[in-house]
Amino acid sequence: MSLIRLGIVGYGNLGKGVEFAVQKNPDFVLKGVFTRRAPKSVQTEGAPVFALDSILDHQKEIDVLILCGGSATDLPEQTPYLAQFFNTVDSFDTHAKIPEHFKAVDEAGKKAGTVNIISTGWDPGLFSLNRLYGESFLPDGNTYTFWGKGISQGHSDAIRRIEGVLDARQYTIPIESALNAVRAGENPSLSTRQKHLRECFVVEKDGADKEKIKKAIQTMPNYFDEYDTTVHFVSMESLKKEHGGMPHGGFVLRSGKSSENVNHVIEFSLKLQSNPEFTSGVLVAYARAAYRLNQKKEKGAFTVLDIPPALLSPKAPDVLRKEFL
Amino acid sequence: MSLIRLGIVGYGNLGKGVEFAVQKNPDFVLKGVFTRRAPKSVQTEGAPVFALDSILDHQKEIDVLILCGGSATDLPEQTPYLAQFFNTVDSFDTHAKIPEHFKAVDEAGKKAGTVNIISTGWDPGLFSLNRLYGESFLPDGNTYTFWGKGISQGHSDAIRRIEGVLDARQYTIPIESALNAVRAGENPSLSTRQKHLRECFVVEKDGADKEKIKKAIQTMPNYFDEYDTTVHFVSMESLKKEHGGMPHGGFVLRSGKSSENVNHVIEFSLKLQSNPEFTSGVLVAYARAAYRLNQKKEKGAFTVLDIPPALLSPKAPDVLRKEFL
Repeated sequence: MSLIRLGIVGYGNLGKGVEFAVQKNPDFVLKGVFTRRAPKSVQTEGAPVFALDSILDHQKEIDVLILCGGSATDLPEQTPYLAQFFNTVDSFDTHAKIPEHFKAVDEAGKKAGTVNIISTGWDPGLFSLNRLYGESFLPDGNTYTFWGKGISQGHSDAIRRIEGVLDARQYTIPIESALNAVRAGENPSLSTRQKHLRECFVVEKDGADKEKIKKAIQTMPNYFDEYDTTVHFVSMESLKKEHGGMPHGGFVLRSGKSSENVNHVIEFSLKLQSNPEFTSGVLVAYARAAYRLNQKKEKGAFTVLDIPPALLSPKAPDVLRKEFL
Repeated sequence: MSLIRLGIVGYGNLGKGVEFAVQKNPDFVLKGVFTRRAPKSVQTEGAPVFALDSILDHQKEIDVLILCGGSATDLPEQTPYLAQFFNTVDSFDTHAKIPEHFKAVDEAGKKAGTVNIISTGWDPGLFSLNRLYGESFLPDGNTYTFWGKGISQGHSDAIRRIEGVLDARQYTIPIESALNAVRAGENPSLSTRQKHLRECFVVEKDGADKEKIKKAIQTMPNYFDEYDTTVHFVSMESLKKEHGGMPHGGFVLRSGKSSENVNHVIEFSLKLQSNPEFTSGVLVAYARAAYRLNQKKEKGAFTVLDIPPALLSPKAPDVLRKEFL
């Protein structure tokens, strides 16, 4: 069997995670990392590094590109552009803009004959799958998504922008009693405040007003004002040592009735020690599916909802039936 | 939108569950129940009842047949036979014989141009999906399946065959400490005895030797001898009142590393108040997929591993992307 030849675009935490993931998936070979930085300044685990500008020179050596840029500005440009030349997988996660992103990528992919799987990862991604499965099997019910315990990058960034803050990390924490009410089949109505807590670890600048920072966090609209938020001031050393990881996870639950008084609960959960490394494993599995769909002459944009699960595994269909069913 | 026209073959607990499930899925209409019993003797919730022998007369009125017979003798005959004339969905669950069943059904379906999804339900079925997803996203790891707490029909039947037993129910119970070790990412090696307990509720015949019955249960090869098994003798009244339901469920966990010392845990679980009613909901969602695959001119046998998740939902692809991603 010939190996699937991968390229990585962007080498932050996610790109690095994909390089690790390739080591766990022997049916792939990593042909290169493409970066906007000076290639010589990028230290990989061994993959060759090229300037992103030169990527079209590598078109014939690459079966699938994994796009590891950010959703705010990188992917809305990169995915539709690169879909003109490559099969791609991304983890575009701005939920509200997915329909628009899908359309742009689909047009490029359909024209070029490439397969482009967007918004993989775990949310959107595996959580989306479980929301769909849950509603399909139990149409009369409620779906609940809880996130955490984990670091939210967006909320940590928001705290860092407050005057007097040197650095910060924010944990999103699901409220156990709410989770348990769902698990017990109570089908509760839960407000934003009843579902999650926010816990912040903040390093203040010398002489900053801690009370003012705390108030600025707790009253910040959209980010914190609808939550019970606790704020701890810690040293930079403690922040790096005890809150330097990128754990995350969460829960998707579906609770529903099949007939009067007969209730069922489906629960899916993730406990991730590294959010970017786990996401990378998902990206690589969907890169396998993208490659195979392209072999079958499929084209255009796809999401995790469109992908037959068997295409994610390196194993042959008859082996899958024997081992997994 | 025209309704998907269903037929049910076999009207035990599962067939009855499908009739309930159709009430929760307004894009279906139930055209009839087909039975080997005298049709007049079968009391449905409202669906017309026909003799199974007459089923070919109804070919033009039915888009998909849901086969609700048993895996031991009914489905190995019925699915390949009926696949010659109908799109079908079954819940064939004799794990070791799935490859053989797939082959027989695939040949019939390919010849006839029908779509036939086999071995749906939750195990095989949703648990199979989660075993596949888990291994695909975390290839370096271990998969664990736990069943229960729930009634095992096969084990209950085995007890009923013991001399002196009037009736019995057996619960399979996952061992919490084993589950927690897996959840903690310890990747333990677990023996059969370390994963599950068996708890039996038995009604003895007048004058039967309870000690002898208990010993016969606890030493029964394959069924009980490798487990810690407790036996309670109860009255028929108590058995019916307190153990008359058909709850079940279980857990699929995948624990694996993305790089050295970075571990992740994926957990999927079901807590079902009625095993047959939940299974019926899964059968109906896969009937929707079978219908759509047939519309796309697909044919032959499929399993849950082959079905794009989006085909399970009544919602259109753009709505799914907006609501679930």
